Amino acid sequence: MDEPLILVLNLVGTFAFGLSGGILAVRKKMDLFGVLVLSVATGLGGGILRDLILGHTPPTTLSDWRFLAASSLAGLVVFLDYRQVVQWNRFITAFDAAGLAIFTVTGTTIALSAGLGPVPAALLGMFTGVGGGALRDVLAAEVPLVLRTEIYAVASLLGATIIIIANEAQVLGSFAQIIAAAAIFGLRMVSVWRGWRIPKAHWKEDGTTRSA
Amino acid sequence: MDEPLILVLNLVGTFAFGLSGGILAVRKKMDLFGVLVLSVATGLGGGILRDLILGHTPPTTLSDWRFLAASSLAGLVVFLDYRQVVQWNRFITAFDAAGLAIFTVTGTTIALSAGLGPVPAALLGMFTGVGGGALRDVLAAEVPLVLRTEIYAVASLLGATIIIIANEAQVLGSFAQIIAAAAIFGLRMVSVWRGWRIPKAHWKEDGTTRSA
Amino acid sequence: MDEPLILVLNLVGTFAFGLSGGILAVRKKMDLFGVLVLSVATGLGGGILRDLILGHTPPTTLSDWRFLAASSLAGLVVFLDYRQVVQWNRFITAFDAAGLAIFTVTGTTIALSAGLGPVPAALLGMFTGVGGGALRDVLAAEVPLVLRTEIYAVASLLGATIIIIANEAQVLGSFAQIIAAAAIFGLRMVSVWRGWRIPKAHWKEDGTTRSA
Repeated sequence: MDEPLILVLNLVGTFAFGLSGGILAVRKKMDLFGVLVLSVATGLGGGILRDLILGHTPPTTLSDWRFLAASSLAGLVVFLDYRQVVQWNRFITAFDAAGLAIFTVTGTTIALSAGLGPVPAALLGMFTGVGGGALRDVLAAEVPLVLRTEIYAVASLLGATIIIIANEAQVLGSFAQIIAAAAIFGLRMVSVWRGWRIPKAHWKEDGTTRSA
Repeated sequence: MDEPLILVLNLVGTFAFGLSGGILAVRKKMDLFGVLVLSVATGLGGGILRDLILGHTPPTTLSDWRFLAASSLAGLVVFLDYRQVVQWNRFITAFDAAGLAIFTVTGTTIALSAGLGPVPAALLGMFTGVGGGALRDVLAAEVPLVLRTEIYAVASLLGATIIIIANEAQVLGSFAQIIAAAAIFGLRMVSVWRGWRIPKAHWKEDGTTRSA
Repeated sequence: MDEPLILVLNLVGTFAFGLSGGILAVRKKMDLFGVLVLSVATGLGGGILRDLILGHTPPTTLSDWRFLAASSLAGLVVFLDYRQVVQWNRFITAFDAAGLAIFTVTGTTIALSAGLGPVPAALLGMFTGVGGGALRDVLAAEVPLVLRTEIYAVASLLGATIIIIANEAQVLGSFAQIIAAAAIFGLRMVSVWRGWRIPKAHWKEDGTTRSA
């Protein structure tokens, strides 16, 4: 386990999720403090959930001031640069994907080192990865991205699986973590860019269904 | 306390809540992974909340793979059989009521054996029972069923009260648990079927009120 | 630290938040149990979140029946007096502000006595203060007040900062707590009354931005 890398990745993920929260807040016409609160909630949400589930209280994400600083800074950057928010807006998907990738990898790794088995560790990694974004969307009264129609949970699970396999093969380290994060980020971004879809079951209001 | 019964009931409740989550996801036009994520969130939500509040970390619901399997399987069944989802849809209320009944009973029982007093145990039982469904509805951007206009929380409290009374009378066992679950399920379903309502305070936009 | 004052304040805050939850529930046309559930969720939400984050399980808010009683009583009062709910409605902002003020102060104080540093303690105080109201609004499918356009998080942070400074100066006691709560309540109410606003970044759908 490479602890400094985990810390750096978590801070980068917090900043990326903070940017995505800030952009959504600006788009929803929130004021400066609304922007900061949504940035902080998005940046810290997944890590707090992870630590609560593991029984690590108070959560590191809360007791280490650098996470608060990274997520507030992200909110401030978005707010101060709001004339460019249209530019930022283009990147909201990328920031969200970076947060998803990083938190899934660090969440799965931390869960493994806390002694969880492979399946619970992967599941907790996914919760950590999708948690911040889900909190962001629920607070903004939107259906979370993870439940909408693109490849999202599946990308997170792919990365968690890579970490689990690397752990079983006893090669879990910085290299495997970076590969796993890149796989999540890559799959998510390519799926958005190419418009890849997972099959859907259509349900029509008149009571009939059709294949997607 | 009948531990194997509690486990079986919890798995059945997880499956039932998973079905209700999957049906709502299909109705909301989510893809396969959206369906699975909402099934899992609905199936595991109440139990994770219960274990967090009791300080049982990591939550059994997460560390025992059978809960994940039961809720994913429910999502998969709904998804694969989506042409029949209209039929399923008819039963969403029943699946939700089954989850409510079972989780209230197991939540109250587990809270009592963790040493909580009668009132907190009943309250935690209700949280466990309504938690999964509330998470499902919040994620799908709907007002939770428990807050809408039918008998729901009252059914859950009735069952929790039966468990508390059985415990005080030292007859808490499989029989009392099944009676309590049946009472919750029965009251909930009969109230939907007969259109029973609890009194409401009407508040009109023009600022006047009238009795229901 | 003045423990009896903390308890009394927490009960008053629970009652005030319970009133705000009950009023919103009546406005949303919920029935008696919907009103009680939303009152209880609003009254207990912040304290349960605080205790989970501090690892105090089961949460005092849940195991001490007086919190349940205070929040249920608030719901019942609103429901029974619903003909006057228009009058109540006028005060929803004040009740919410009272809950915010009190829970921020008690949350920050409890976090400090649990050994958290100044920044995490202030942040946890803010979570405690805004948690109940955010849960209320999310359950009612609204964007939480803390994210909408008025001074809210900033008032909470001001009060938390007063507690932190009083603690550093070793004068944290009843007097400092009451000053801090009054500052939060006062700033929040004056900002609503005078229509004070924090700068906003406007983002228009056509892709341009303008200053507020």
